[in-house]
Amino acid sequence: MCERWDTIEVRFGNRIRELRMLAHFTQEELGAVAQLHRNYISDLERGMRNVSLRTIEKLAQALQVEIRDLF
Amino acid sequence: MCERWDTIEVRFGNRIRELRMLAHFTQEELGAVAQLHRNYISDLERGMRNVSLRTIEKLAQALQVEIRDLF
Repeated sequence: MCERWDTIEVRFGNRIRELRMLAHFTQEELGAVAQLHRNYISDLERGMRNVSLRTIEKLAQALQVEIRDLF
Repeated sequence: MCERWDTIEVRFGNRIRELRMLAHFTQEELGAVAQLHRNYISDLERGMRNVSLRTIEKLAQALQVEIRDLF
């Protein structure tokens, strides 16, 4: 059985949540700024999305951090 | 017309090529270690692939760097 608790998707999701909270964004607000649906942000933060490079770039821009700081 | 020369895909591709050469890998060797087809590596290095998080992780592991060092 694949351990889901420490996949790259879970680690990335936790990092996005951390940065979103530091930025005092709700999931809805982050979604609006990053041009992503709120449900997508919710799934992503729960480690359920194998996001793409372009989505990673949108999130970094919305959170006003360098892409490398998302990892 | 979308300027293709400086997209995140192009910047990421250039970085992978740079690290691959530092590691003295051919595209074929990197593909084998990262479990990706050589043609995929070639496309990626030319900025033609919007890669996923899992592929990014495979590349970092194959190149023996931290994911953040790919950006």
